[in-house]
Amino acid sequence: MEIPSKILETAVDELATLPGVGKRSALRYALHLLDASDSDFAAFIGALTRLKSDSHYCSRCQCISDTPVCPICSSPKRNQKIICVVENVQEVMAIENTAQYTGLYHVLGGVISPLDGVGINDLAIRELLDRIPAEQTEEVILALPTTMEGDTTNIYIDRQLKQFPNLKVTTIARGIAIGDNLEYADEITLGRSIVNRIPFEKA
Amino acid sequence: MEIPSKILETAVDELATLPGVGKRSALRYALHLLDASDSDFAAFIGALTRLKSDSHYCSRCQCISDTPVCPICSSPKRNQKIICVVENVQEVMAIENTAQYTGLYHVLGGVISPLDGVGINDLAIRELLDRIPAEQTEEVILALPTTMEGDTTNIYIDRQLKQFPNLKVTTIARGIAIGDNLEYADEITLGRSIVNRIPFEKA
Repeated sequence: MEIPSKILETAVDELATLPGVGKRSALRYALHLLDASDSDFAAFIGALTRLKSDSHYCSRCQCISDTPVCPICSSPKRNQKIICVVENVQEVMAIENTAQYTGLYHVLGGVISPLDGVGINDLAIRELLDRIPAEQTEEVILALPTTMEGDTTNIYIDRQLKQFPNLKVTTIARGIAIGDNLEYADEITLGRSIVNRIPFEKA
Repeated sequence: MEIPSKILETAVDELATLPGVGKRSALRYALHLLDASDSDFAAFIGALTRLKSDSHYCSRCQCISDTPVCPICSSPKRNQKIICVVENVQEVMAIENTAQYTGLYHVLGGVISPLDGVGINDLAIRELLDRIPAEQTEEVILALPTTMEGDTTNIYIDRQLKQFPNLKVTTIARGIAIGDNLEYADEITLGRSIVNRIPFEKA
C-alpha cells in the first residue's frame, strides 16, 4: 500500500504507533482528521495536548486525577486500611465498576518488563512502600495481570512487603468465570481453581 | 465506565470521534499518549498538525499530493484519456495496488449524502466536468461504492456527463469474487453477475 503523500504517510505512521492500530486503520483516522473542520481538529489536538501538559496524579494512589488527592483517596467512605495494587487506571475503573471494593488503590503505572525497558524505578513501588507505614495499612491486595511481567512484579513487591511483619498480603481470586463451562476453560485456570477451592457457602 | 479525570475524559471523547474507535480503545490510546515520552508525543502531534496545515491536493485529480500535480497525473506513462472517478484516496491506492490500471483518477472527496450534510458542492464534481473538455477525455469510469449514496452520486455524475456526447461512461464490473463459492454469494451480486455475463474467453 503506497501512500501518495509524504505528509500523509508521516501522519499515518504516527497514528499507527497507537496500541492495536494498523496502517489501514491509521489511514482512515488520518483522512478523517484531514476532512474534519478546523474547529473540530483544534478541539482534538487541544484535548490531547492538555492531556499531556495538564494531567496530574493523585499524590497518594498515583492515579490520574484533576485534584492533588483523588476522590477515592479523599473519600471518608473508603476503607483507608486496604490498598489494592493495580497496573493502570483502567483496572481502577474496572474494579470500581463492580461496586464491590471499598478500599483504596495504588497505581504502579506498569509492570516490570526488562524487554520494554521498564525497571523497578519506573514504577510507583517506592511510593507504595512509603504509604504503608504512613497510612497504617493493614492489607495489600496484589491485582497485577497474570503475565510473566505481572508475576515478576507481584513477587518483587511481595518481597519488599516482608519488611512490614503485620501486613496482610493477598491477591485476587483466579478461577473459572461465572457462567463459564469447565470443558472450555484453559488448564492452568482450571487447575488453579481446583487447588484454591473455597468452602461452598462462601461462593 | 467512569473516568476519574476530566482532562483524560475529554481526550478520550476526542479520540472516540475517530472512525470505528469506541470509548475503550480511545482510553487505551489516551493512556498510551500520556505514557509516551515528550519527544514521541511532540512527533505525534506535529505530524497531525502538519497533515492538516501543509496537505495539498493535486490540481488535476484532487488526490492528496505533496506536489501541485500528483505523480500519477504528471506521469507520461499513464493514459491521459481515461479518468477513473473514486470517492477517496484509499480507492486510488487500492486500484494502484492491482497494477492493472494505467489511466488517471479523479477523487471526489466523498459521495452525496444529505444525512451527513454532504451536497454536490462539497464534492469535486465541478472540477471533473472542467477536466473532460480540457484534457479531451475519452472515457470516464465510475468506481464509487455500491451504497445508496454512491449510486445517487453515480447517477448524478452520469447525467452531468451527458453534455459530452462523445464521452464513454463505464463502471467497474461487479460480480462474484475470484475464488468465491456461488452458494455463499449474496443474491444481488450473483444476480448482477449473471445479467452482466461476459464471453468465456475474456474471463
